[in-house]
Amino acid sequence: MNRQVVEIIMGSDSDWPTMQVCHKHLEEYSIHSRVTILSAHRTPKTLTEHIIKAESNGILIFIAGAGLNASLAGCIAALTVRPVISVPICNGPLNGIDALLASSQMPSGIPVATMTIGQSGARNAALLAIQILALTTPELYAKLRDYKAAQANEVDQQNQLFQQRLNNEFME
Amino acid sequence: MNRQVVEIIMGSDSDWPTMQVCHKHLEEYSIHSRVTILSAHRTPKTLTEHIIKAESNGILIFIAGAGLNASLAGCIAALTVRPVISVPICNGPLNGIDALLASSQMPSGIPVATMTIGQSGARNAALLAIQILALTTPELYAKLRDYKAAQANEVDQQNQLFQQRLNNEFME
Amino acid sequence: MNRQVVEIIMGSDSDWPTMQVCHKHLEEYSIHSRVTILSAHRTPKTLTEHIIKAESNGILIFIAGAGLNASLAGCIAALTVRPVISVPICNGPLNGIDALLASSQMPSGIPVATMTIGQSGARNAALLAIQILALTTPELYAKLRDYKAAQANEVDQQNQLFQQRLNNEFME
Amino acid sequence: MNRQVVEIIMGSDSDWPTMQVCHKHLEEYSIHSRVTILSAHRTPKTLTEHIIKAESNGILIFIAGAGLNASLAGCIAALTVRPVISVPICNGPLNGIDALLASSQMPSGIPVATMTIGQSGARNAALLAIQILALTTPELYAKLRDYKAAQANEVDQQNQLFQQRLNNEFME
Amino acid sequence: MNRQVVEIIMGSDSDWPTMQVCHKHLEEYSIHSRVTILSAHRTPKTLTEHIIKAESNGILIFIAGAGLNASLAGCIAALTVRPVISVPICNGPLNGIDALLASSQMPSGIPVATMTIGQSGARNAALLAIQILALTTPELYAKLRDYKAAQANEVDQQNQLFQQRLNNEFME
Amino acid sequence: MNRQVVEIIMGSDSDWPTMQVCHKHLEEYSIHSRVTILSAHRTPKTLTEHIIKAESNGILIFIAGAGLNASLAGCIAALTVRPVISVPICNGPLNGIDALLASSQMPSGIPVATMTIGQSGARNAALLAIQILALTTPELYAKLRDYKAAQANEVDQQNQLFQQRLNNEFME
Amino acid sequence: MNRQVVEIIMGSDSDWPTMQVCHKHLEEYSIHSRVTILSAHRTPKTLTEHIIKAESNGILIFIAGAGLNASLAGCIAALTVRPVISVPICNGPLNGIDALLASSQMPSGIPVATMTIGQSGARNAALLAIQILALTTPELYAKLRDYKAAQANEVDQQNQLFQQRLNNEFME
Amino acid sequence: MNRQVVEIIMGSDSDWPTMQVCHKHLEEYSIHSRVTILSAHRTPKTLTEHIIKAESNGILIFIAGAGLNASLAGCIAALTVRPVISVPICNGPLNGIDALLASSQMPSGIPVATMTIGQSGARNAALLAIQILALTTPELYAKLRDYKAAQANEVDQQNQLFQQRLNNEFME
Repeated sequence: MNRQVVEIIMGSDSDWPTMQVCHKHLEEYSIHSRVTILSAHRTPKTLTEHIIKAESNGILIFIAGAGLNASLAGCIAALTVRPVISVPICNGPLNGIDALLASSQMPSGIPVATMTIGQSGARNAALLAIQILALTTPELYAKLRDYKAAQANEVDQQNQLFQQRLNNEFME
Repeated sequence: MNRQVVEIIMGSDSDWPTMQVCHKHLEEYSIHSRVTILSAHRTPKTLTEHIIKAESNGILIFIAGAGLNASLAGCIAALTVRPVISVPICNGPLNGIDALLASSQMPSGIPVATMTIGQSGARNAALLAIQILALTTPELYAKLRDYKAAQANEVDQQNQLFQQRLNNEFME
Repeated sequence: MNRQVVEIIMGSDSDWPTMQVCHKHLEEYSIHSRVTILSAHRTPKTLTEHIIKAESNGILIFIAGAGLNASLAGCIAALTVRPVISVPICNGPLNGIDALLASSQMPSGIPVATMTIGQSGARNAALLAIQILALTTPELYAKLRDYKAAQANEVDQQNQLFQQRLNNEFME
Repeated sequence: MNRQVVEIIMGSDSDWPTMQVCHKHLEEYSIHSRVTILSAHRTPKTLTEHIIKAESNGILIFIAGAGLNASLAGCIAALTVRPVISVPICNGPLNGIDALLASSQMPSGIPVATMTIGQSGARNAALLAIQILALTTPELYAKLRDYKAAQANEVDQQNQLFQQRLNNEFME
Repeated sequence: MNRQVVEIIMGSDSDWPTMQVCHKHLEEYSIHSRVTILSAHRTPKTLTEHIIKAESNGILIFIAGAGLNASLAGCIAALTVRPVISVPICNGPLNGIDALLASSQMPSGIPVATMTIGQSGARNAALLAIQILALTTPELYAKLRDYKAAQANEVDQQNQLFQQRLNNEFME
Repeated sequence: MNRQVVEIIMGSDSDWPTMQVCHKHLEEYSIHSRVTILSAHRTPKTLTEHIIKAESNGILIFIAGAGLNASLAGCIAALTVRPVISVPICNGPLNGIDALLASSQMPSGIPVATMTIGQSGARNAALLAIQILALTTPELYAKLRDYKAAQANEVDQQNQLFQQRLNNEFME
Repeated sequence: MNRQVVEIIMGSDSDWPTMQVCHKHLEEYSIHSRVTILSAHRTPKTLTEHIIKAESNGILIFIAGAGLNASLAGCIAALTVRPVISVPICNGPLNGIDALLASSQMPSGIPVATMTIGQSGARNAALLAIQILALTTPELYAKLRDYKAAQANEVDQQNQLFQQRLNNEFME
Repeated sequence: MNRQVVEIIMGSDSDWPTMQVCHKHLEEYSIHSRVTILSAHRTPKTLTEHIIKAESNGILIFIAGAGLNASLAGCIAALTVRPVISVPICNGPLNGIDALLASSQMPSGIPVATMTIGQSGARNAALLAIQILALTTPELYAKLRDYKAAQANEVDQQNQLFQQRLNNEFME
């Protein structure tokens, strides 16, 4: 995939430690996502122009990371008919429950696909984007199946190592 | 005040039973507010144009009523430097706590004045708008002081009636 | 689209009043979704076989509706690499906040796209599925753009009717 | 603005790290706010006298910072018809959700403009106060528009720096 | 007890259905409580004068019933060193959790004895007041012990009736 | 007061850092409280015997400190008709909200006076106990009035020092 | 099973509509449970004696149903080393979330097996009790396996009926 | 007990610091539990096979530890009719309240015995398992009674040491 089809948008570079997990996971599938800092509240006009242009230039999936009242994903979804995925970021005193509710409780007619709060959600946002692209890209589909198998293997191996560790503890 | 300086914006006419309380209370102070149905998510472009035009045409205060993730107030605040007041509306399974958190947990730099959930908040939104206008309108200020005195009187009278009722109950 | 590519799965027929909104909205886009009653907890083996078979038979998107601890979407996502969308259903004393948290707080590696609680979420699940299919189906993309325009028009018309109603009230 | 028209009231000097953000932001607009330590519960009589006197001496806007059950803003609003802004402070085990609910859930007739929990709310309280004063002070209005533009520029610059950083990471 | 030593204060006569339970329970112990409608926010001055006078006139215990941000009890506690008991009233969309948090999360130095939300709390407020008065009134103490015994008996009798009902159901 | 009339009961010595605040504050009023470690769940029989004996031996007020589901206060209140005060302790992952709800949501007929979560609540528990004892002890009443005045003075002095500090910062 | 080995304890006969579901489900497995009304707070001594006697008389499993702060299960678990199952009952303004937290947040050393809020929890309490008894009763184990199979069949049949209904709707 | 009858299952070895408390406590009763790492979402097929095999090989009780949406216990309960105990693990931004709700809010027909969040819950899970096994193992029953007595003694001793410490503090 030479051209960029996934765009990660975040409200501030302070969201990067979370959203980098998303970006890296996309890279593992050779999907070079565009990352842009844009704010629903501080750059509403740039956001509007950017999203409309991005959609017409071929961005297929938007991933938004935002904390507090997390309007970013919803405001993007208001402007595009491409799938919008939201990663609620845990950056305030309410630990992201505000961002989770604001992301998920969208009104009828404007879907936003809400993920887990924080880095787990960032990784899952990448995976959902890949799952969507894999619907028409057999290589991605194969990679996802490999990843799923690898996940299972990883748990199995973790389990085997753990059994050894547990046995050793008892033998000591 | 002949020209309209307060605008009530709500996402749907189903919000009117709540926001009507706001509109009526403004009328009691002879402030004829404009009421417009506009949605942060369904009419983002109209909203943008509307707010910019409204500000340049003399709207001084915006009051937004919205439920669920209640982005409306924040999206208006992103477009104007006029005060924006939010009334969280209680219209979903979470009883407005989602709308309250989404209204109040605004990021730094974009203030939204959040009121009580529901009709009490709608009345208070009207009063805050009047308080703001009263800063430079002595008649409004006088009316507000009268209203405050009347509020106290009303409680006093309610108390007196209640004492009679209580006495009657005991005498029966 | 002659063959069925979207499957709605719900834990019980009591979820139908919510999920019917999803089914009907897909129909409006001529997407004839399959609807199946399957339970993560009561029919775990059937669910496993069903999902694996469904994926191999061409189901591209799964939409799960469930209340309480809402494991259905996560259990489907554990079995497939196709996108899984969850509609938290409001059917217990906690009004769906349990289902919302359970849907969205998925562990890293297993994405579930969580929607709004209840019927708004059911409609949005349909729309997200359509958005995904529209990435490679120009007609669907065109319909979605029309729908977005229609949404905006509907708000505009609602606003115009409201203005008339408001004027009439004042003239009376 | 030579005379003080904004007063920041806080329940304890331990609230200063939060409220200082508000004070400093007002200074950036050349608004020299008065800061007073007064408690709704520990100095109710002084508070009453102070607010009545402050209103008659020309304070136009009150900003209250308080944690826990955060009665300060509401008690001020009970005494004045000037706008009262509340900053819920995050200083107890419930992380400010108690202060947020107590600030915003005011009864009908006594508006309090509730901001975000913590320092973001403190800055926003300053901005709302400035927005209110700007309604009749063209220079403040101009400054606010500049600030809004600067905010957008800041995000743009942050984005440009981020793009460079991202490119460098890939070139390494 | 001829003179009134307990005063029930509520913000509005709409709180009477809840607070009446408190009043009646006090009557059962021959404690004729005074009931007054006063508001922390609508009649702050009357409240201040009233509480100071009430304390000097011999009111020993204040019971406050209030909903939403429930400042009433705290504002009374700020004015008196007599025990203050709070009954959070369930009268808004948040079902009294706002009133419960606001009542209980008092700052250090100003105790408020918070009860259960609603009518159970109203009855318990009466009982706590009686328990306090019983510390120096042997007859009240004896009555409370009788009440405690009666409570236990009532549960025993309920149990016996229930056993009969259960047996009858099985015999049918 | 030579004999002990207040007893502080806590479930574990790990609660002492919180409850010590209560104990110390009572000492400041020359009330030497008894402190006992007893658990509603681990020593139910000892608790039962202890409370009954304590009541007959002259304990007038019980103060219970407990975290998690905080049954201690309720279980004491089940055994005595003396006033029982609860201090919800913040010692688990839910930060004391579980202990606060469990303390306050008592069934009808068994009052528990719930305080703020943590050390503020511990101090307030002491103050409420003193307020109760002061109803019949003029010296305690006088001390409480002094304390209230001192509280107000302390805030005033804090305010004066703060004004100096603020002035100095500006002069630098 | 001739002698009664399961006892359902509830705080009031108003809990019967919920706990009856538990009782009936046990009957379906020919387990005739004893049902007793006892209160942790109103009959603490009877409860203590009852539980100790019940354990020595052969009660193997206790099921407690209670609302609000739901101390019943914990207080039983304090007195016995037999398994205690709790059904949080939804009978107050907080919809059972208080009872759920109070049931589950037991201190270390005193286990309580907490179920779903309300009737679903009542049925599950019965099933858990049966699962425990089935560990040493092959017939119960066989019945449980049949029930599990029947559950799956029921979902399958529900699904088949639903497919017919759906087809009919389309054919009309 | 030579053969393993209790199995602890956890989603990841990062859950071991919590679940080790469970394992160790079982060891104190000479119950050598099997510990296995298995994930409801990452190894659904292995989990299915494992549970079915474990049940047929004689595992009598399953204890599941999981965080976030904590599906593990429910997915095990879907596959077995043996008792399933859930320990909600506190490993995300919501501090385990998500895991607690997901564990306890099981649908009708599939019981899961939910414990306290975190290490207290892990210990209680062990104790509940022992209580269940003790129903038919007199030695375990005797040990549990000893443990209960020891718990009470421990509190008594803690109390005695505390009294000395308190006395010493006063004598200094």
